[in-house]
Formats: sequence, structure tokens, C-alpha cells
Amino acid sequence: MTLDNISSNKSFSGWHKQYRHHSLSLNCDMRFAIFLPPQAMNEKVPVLYWLSGLTCTDENFMQKAGAQRLAAKLGIAIVAPDTSPRGNDVPDCPEGAYDFGLGAGFYVNATEAPFDTHYQMYDYIVNELPSLIEAHFPINNKRSIAGHSMGGHGALTIALRNPDRYQSVSAFSPICNPINSPWGIKAFSGYLGKDKQNWLNYDSCELIKKSHHFVPALVDQGEDDNFLKEQLKPENLQAIAKNINYPLKLRMQPGYDHSYYFIASFIEDHLDFHAKHLG
Amino acid sequence: MTLDNISSNKSFSGWHKQYRHHSLSLNCDMRFAIFLPPQAMNEKVPVLYWLSGLTCTDENFMQKAGAQRLAAKLGIAIVAPDTSPRGNDVPDCPEGAYDFGLGAGFYVNATEAPFDTHYQMYDYIVNELPSLIEAHFPINNKRSIAGHSMGGHGALTIALRNPDRYQSVSAFSPICNPINSPWGIKAFSGYLGKDKQNWLNYDSCELIKKSHHFVPALVDQGEDDNFLKEQLKPENLQAIAKNINYPLKLRMQPGYDHSYYFIASFIEDHLDFHAKHLG
Repeated sequence: MTLDNISSNKSFSGWHKQYRHHSLSLNCDMRFAIFLPPQAMNEKVPVLYWLSGLTCTDENFMQKAGAQRLAAKLGIAIVAPDTSPRGNDVPDCPEGAYDFGLGAGFYVNATEAPFDTHYQMYDYIVNELPSLIEAHFPINNKRSIAGHSMGGHGALTIALRNPDRYQSVSAFSPICNPINSPWGIKAFSGYLGKDKQNWLNYDSCELIKKSHHFVPALVDQGEDDNFLKEQLKPENLQAIAKNINYPLKLRMQPGYDHSYYFIASFIEDHLDFHAKHLG
Repeated sequence: MTLDNISSNKSFSGWHKQYRHHSLSLNCDMRFAIFLPPQAMNEKVPVLYWLSGLTCTDENFMQKAGAQRLAAKLGIAIVAPDTSPRGNDVPDCPEGAYDFGLGAGFYVNATEAPFDTHYQMYDYIVNELPSLIEAHFPINNKRSIAGHSMGGHGALTIALRNPDRYQSVSAFSPICNPINSPWGIKAFSGYLGKDKQNWLNYDSCELIKKSHHFVPALVDQGEDDNFLKEQLKPENLQAIAKNINYPLKLRMQPGYDHSYYFIASFIEDHLDFHAKHLG
């Protein structure tokens, strides 16, 4: 597989780089960004995968979260993929909505036409992208995963389904119970079809109930987030986690909203949390 | 004067806010952003004005520089104005170029028609905006100024011309000698006319020669900046500063480019530098 380097910026004595490659799982060309801390010049380093929210690309987190300072200090690489397949032949939401289609892959493997030929974001994030990263960069086999909003949903569901592949998981403002939220219902109906049984594998509240091998989890949620009540529902996830003694820490943050200003304010805690588990 | 609050985000226990107001000097409505550190809830705090570069608005620095973390710790407010007058009746570059007209005010008072009715960015930054900020926010009378590229030129020239108004000045990749750079020659010809005598008041190299009251200055410049040789010329400024013992520290940073990844990597040093002088 070929990786085309399309940008390179020195950042905190490490490097921010963007690459384009052909994705077999998504059947299209994709772009991702990687931050390589200075330690990666001399040794293999662990990696944090960051899954972004609706409308985002690989760029939002790398430009706005302020994560590189501490990642450089801790010696952690960060990989930020795009949020959906891309390209002229990738079907989009017919109404051009922001919450379905391009920029809104929801980290699922679509089963419904016409989305099933490209929208295989679950496979891309869990299998194809890590193989690519570990083959081409000085990255060891320690992985953690994190994300925001739709990406927080992605990070939690992927960690819950693959506890052997991730050391830790964290999320900002995740969609915790998508089968009971308007965003989730719209996306899952479109990508997975009408049978709600097929949605359960992509819902953190459903998955956590069945989990045996626990991945430590940290969730931050702004109390003044406009989407909190209708879309995010962290209280549902926390209630189940408490019942089964799942190591999930939910922190409600007074005054904070859904924006990257919130993420930047607490990203250090998340990087410290992952560093502890990445060893 | 009325200020309309158009956004508000909690950030590092302080607040990022955007405002719209009518500017008398620019003869149009303008937007600016302010970061108020948590200390501003209880006392008046000093302020750093940040002048952005070509094509930017009030948003680039606030979203990408990662400055809020340390500003919150140090108790410094940050004000980020726009880079030119705005609005449908504000004349733009006839060819729509990125380096003249909208987004490219160059922090001068234009004398040439049709730009002279709106392009009075020097007066806006030096007088109108600080009056507005100090009247409406818990800001004391200690000011510093900083900027990037075109905004680095703005910060240096404004500090050199108003040493009594600023405690310190810093710049990333500033246009140090605009009368000898293509960007500066184009902008000054359009805004100030053909007589180069009228350009000298907006050129850091010319101004520093005549300065008596010194404002401490810190300049960071990436060695791999594509614009370094043709447009920026920090060596010209440094040579004159050395001759007259001006307290200007120029740091050449190997490997870094012209981007916000560079700014983010060193913004802490700039905030620490200003904090020392803001007291």
C-alpha cells in the first residue's frame, strides 16, 4: 500500500503530517493526519487514535485541540482519520444534511444500499488504518482511542467491542445511546436498515452491558452542551457502568459547551489518562 | 458604543467571547474576540492584543494557537481583532488577491481612494479598540501586543510608534521590512500611494532606527518558512537593533514553517515574556 505525504509541519519538536492513501475497506481515497512526537525519531511509540465528530475531517482536532504539546512530552503519537469515506462517487445524504453521509460515517459498517459499498468506517478504523500505521510509522502495538461527539460514540463502541486491541478509551461529549437519540436513529436507519437488532452492536449502552474484558474509560461532558439532553445521554451509560462496576469515569463540567474550546480545556487530562495505560 | 455579544464559550475556566460593534475609525461593523481568564471575574487584568496575518479573522488565533491555557494561568486577557474592515461597501482588491483589501489591512491608515474611507486599521488598533475594551471589560491599563506575519509587522510598528502604550511586543514570522518586500510594496502602494516617504512610518526597520523609548521585543522565526527570504527579512531588523542596543531578541527556530503549528509550539514563551512585563 502506498502512502502519499501531502503536508508536513514541525510541531513541538515533533511532526504533524497528512497522508493520502487508497482504502480497501472504504473503496475510495482517504486522508489522515498523524502527529509524531520527538521520541518517535529514536524509538517506537504508542498511539492514540482520535475520532472526530459530525462535519469534521482529519484537521479539526490537530488544529484546535492543543494536544501536541503534551503528546510531545509524553511520547505518544496521535492519528486522526477522516469521519467518512470521501470522493465524487461516494453517495451523500440526498438532502445534503450535516448528520448523514459525507462527514457523518458514524463508525459503522453500512449494510444498506447505496451506502454499503463505501461506508465501512468500523472496519477502516479497527483494522485497515492501524495496520497501515503500524507498517509505515515508528509505532508500537500499544493503542488507545478517543473521540468527540459522533467520534466519542465511535471510540467507546470500538473499544467495547475490541478490548484486546485498546489499552484505554476516552471521549468528550459522546453520543452514548445512539439507538435512543435522533442523530443515531437517523444514521442507523440509513446505514443499517430498519431492524433495530442490527443497531445494538453500535450502541455503547448495549455493548457495555455485555462486556467482560474492561477497557478503562474516561468521559468528559459539558453541562451547558446544547446537545446533552436530546442527543448524548451520558447518564444512561454511567448508570449501566455503575451497575456492573465498569471502570468508567464520567466528569460533568459546569459551564462548558460542545465546542473545541471545551476539548482543549481538558485534553491534557485525557492524554495523561491514556499515557498511564499505554505504559 | 454598543457591543453585541455573538458567541460565548467557556475555556480553561475563563471565557472566549466574540462581539460585533460599529467602528467609527473603520466606518463599518467589526467583529473581535476576547479571552477573559478566570481572574477577570474578580479583578482587572492586563491584556495582550493579537494581530493576525493575511486572510485571517478574529478566529484563527483563538482556535489554533493554544494560548488560552497559559493565559488562564497567568491571568492575561487576549483580544484578537479582525485583519481589515469588512462589509459589502468596503472596497476589496479588484483582482480578489489574498494579500490586498479584505483580510489584508496591513495595520495602516490608508490615504489613497477608494481605500481611505475604511482602511484605517492603525487607528482602530491603537486607539478605538483599546478604548472600547477598557470601557466594557475588566481590563487594567497594562497592554502588550503581538502578532503573526502581517500581524507581526503590525505589532512591531505599533509598539515602536507608541512605546508609552505597550509594555512589551512579540511577533512570529513578522514582515520586518515591508518597504523592501513584495507584500509590503503592493500593500503600501495601494493604501499609501507612490511616495515612499509615506511608507517609512509603517516599516519596523525604519522605525526602530528612530526609537528612543524601548519596548522589549521577542521575535520567533521558523528557518523553514517559505516566506522567510523574500518577504520577512528578520535579519535586517536584528542588525539595526544590535547597532542601537535595542532589547530585541530574535530566535531562529530550525525546521519550523509559517503555520499555526509553529505559533502553537512557542506561544507559551511569548505569554511568559509578556507576563513578565505586564507585571
